[in-house]
Amino acid sequence: MATTAEAEAMRRAIALAARGLGHTSPNPVVGCVILDADGRTAGEGWHQRAGGPHAEVHALRAAGERARGGTAVVTLEPCNHTGRTGPCAQALQDAGIVRVVYAVADPNAKAAGGAAALAAAGTAVESGLLADQAAAVNEAWLTSMRFGRPFVLWKYAATLDGRSAAADGTSRWITSAESRADVHRLRAESDAVVVGSGTLRADDPHLAVRGASGSGASGASSGSNGVRQPLRVVLDSKATIAPDARVLDGTAPTLIAVAEDAPAVRLAGAETVRLPRATSGPGLDIPALLGELHGRGIRSVLLEGGPTLAGAFLAARAVDKVVGYLAPALLGAGAPALADAGITTITQALRLELTDVTRLGPDLRITAVPAPTAPVAPEES
Amino acid sequence: MATTAEAEAMRRAIALAARGLGHTSPNPVVGCVILDADGRTAGEGWHQRAGGPHAEVHALRAAGERARGGTAVVTLEPCNHTGRTGPCAQALQDAGIVRVVYAVADPNAKAAGGAAALAAAGTAVESGLLADQAAAVNEAWLTSMRFGRPFVLWKYAATLDGRSAAADGTSRWITSAESRADVHRLRAESDAVVVGSGTLRADDPHLAVRGASGSGASGASSGSNGVRQPLRVVLDSKATIAPDARVLDGTAPTLIAVAEDAPAVRLAGAETVRLPRATSGPGLDIPALLGELHGRGIRSVLLEGGPTLAGAFLAARAVDKVVGYLAPALLGAGAPALADAGITTITQALRLELTDVTRLGPDLRITAVPAPTAPVAPEES
Repeated sequence: MATTAEAEAMRRAIALAARGLGHTSPNPVVGCVILDADGRTAGEGWHQRAGGPHAEVHALRAAGERARGGTAVVTLEPCNHTGRTGPCAQALQDAGIVRVVYAVADPNAKAAGGAAALAAAGTAVESGLLADQAAAVNEAWLTSMRFGRPFVLWKYAATLDGRSAAADGTSRWITSAESRADVHRLRAESDAVVVGSGTLRADDPHLAVRGASGSGASGASSGSNGVRQPLRVVLDSKATIAPDARVLDGTAPTLIAVAEDAPAVRLAGAETVRLPRATSGPGLDIPALLGELHGRGIRSVLLEGGPTLAGAFLAARAVDKVVGYLAPALLGAGAPALADAGITTITQALRLELTDVTRLGPDLRITAVPAPTAPVAPEES
Repeated sequence: MATTAEAEAMRRAIALAARGLGHTSPNPVVGCVILDADGRTAGEGWHQRAGGPHAEVHALRAAGERARGGTAVVTLEPCNHTGRTGPCAQALQDAGIVRVVYAVADPNAKAAGGAAALAAAGTAVESGLLADQAAAVNEAWLTSMRFGRPFVLWKYAATLDGRSAAADGTSRWITSAESRADVHRLRAESDAVVVGSGTLRADDPHLAVRGASGSGASGASSGSNGVRQPLRVVLDSKATIAPDARVLDGTAPTLIAVAEDAPAVRLAGAETVRLPRATSGPGLDIPALLGELHGRGIRSVLLEGGPTLAGAFLAARAVDKVVGYLAPALLGAGAPALADAGITTITQALRLELTDVTRLGPDLRITAVPAPTAPVAPEES
């Protein structure tokens, strides 16, 4: 049974873990608090970036000799493998830790086994403390471990009647400055941002995190001011991107995905990848795209593409979370937030569960996840 | 300056007033609390139905001799005219009330002047206590007094992507049982429920308040079990309603509005009225309809009609409040909640202000009112 001090330390460890969001892929975010033999905080740490020390190592360093006889409170099961750093299970034992409390078991076969190794060496081990909260902060990584593809968050902005643009195509600005700032936060926490060629033509978006600059041939990169830029991904099956598109400006890494049969394309400021076409409907095969991104270490994708691309992702059941920014406005005409997702009748509706509703300035931000089971519509009259 | 006891009494009077919602048109809802000379509650009352005693009379009767030397706390300025009942200003004086505290001034020229008459007779009069809350409970009546037309509440149900039906037209049930029960509450508080012929054909709605029965040739009526039924209004410009439509079942009064040039129509179970066609677009002239309803004593309208009728009301700037029931579901195709409202570009968007956001079972209920001034979109890039 975990103590009150340990629960308090776990809450703190989860908050520390969250600081790593957007910086640790392909690794998880992890936070760790070391309590000394008297239950007082002796050290804190979190996994700050892929390739850097694990959370436990940071926390043990901060605790120094006070770790001896103490307890390690950590959001994820300590690893037991030697990668770019040594196994944390060993480091905890070496530091004299006598008890380990962790929240979530490591589903990664390569790294798992830390709890068993610790227990075998005589360390008291307890798991499951605040597991739901700890899993929530790591949802992208845990999802990618489970499905072998990145976690996908679909973000849209619309009026109360579900329009993302007016009849003439204008859309600046449906939502408020507060909502747009929140989208930049989502980008900063994502490894990649994905749009389709329709959005590219209509909006010529930049897709970089505001106030940041970065560079790199592929994968997310850190700019000179330390703000990491997500990989910008454009689905452009016919390779029609204009050479002066803003995503090609070199301020962040960019990947252009074209169809296997698309014309040859060579773009400055971007890498190109060829992918199979979708087996049904237009565009590229979504699972193939996600597999490609997963192979590049991308664990979280922010889907910002327009109604057609969103429909393709939803039809492929490749959306793990939906964040909608609803402006208190009505249009009555114009492009809908979502186009064909292969749904023709009400019983096929993609049912979600609201997990959060927040007022953002004048707007409403709705967060939802796919419902565990599609409920059958009651036969009332 | 109102006392704490008076503020407390006003809060109570507002709650009492709300009990009359849906029963008092063409009159306002009013609540009254009589405090005795020591500031203790001596009597309470509310206006229960049109033609019945005013709130002050109920409260004075309940207070009896304890009203002498006391204070009347009332949500609306006491009337000064002799209608179906005598002037309340006189009744308050006759009962020995020495102080009157009211929230909202009466904008009705016929009834106003009560405060002045009381003051002239030596009664202390104070106005404005909790005026906003008192005005909110009377918003339908106050709006109808100001504009000379009923207050219009547009209600819609939609998915997060703004669809009210799937591609094949099915829509049962997009929203939950909790949301549908809430719609019945809105109906019960309204004098009339309005739909268009499109909704009539698609859904054949009944539009009566659940668990109630009523009858009457025109105007809202009370059923035998005491639940008042709102007037069911169908906009059917071409007089195409089927004789077996459920709204013609006689369980509640029904009005069919047809165009002046429509074929002759004679329906059992409904009254018919001829109205001019809209000057632009299809259907009937919305201001003419609202004028007709206002003349019948209708002070509040619940607009339940489909996307086309909602668009016509919005284009006519004849919507005072919007209540949207948003189901956490996605469709990607199917009829939108709102069709053409005469808006072609983003700067013309009808901007609203959220006044309430409530979770109803799995759904979200959003309440909004037209923004006082349409803000100019900032010229950000």
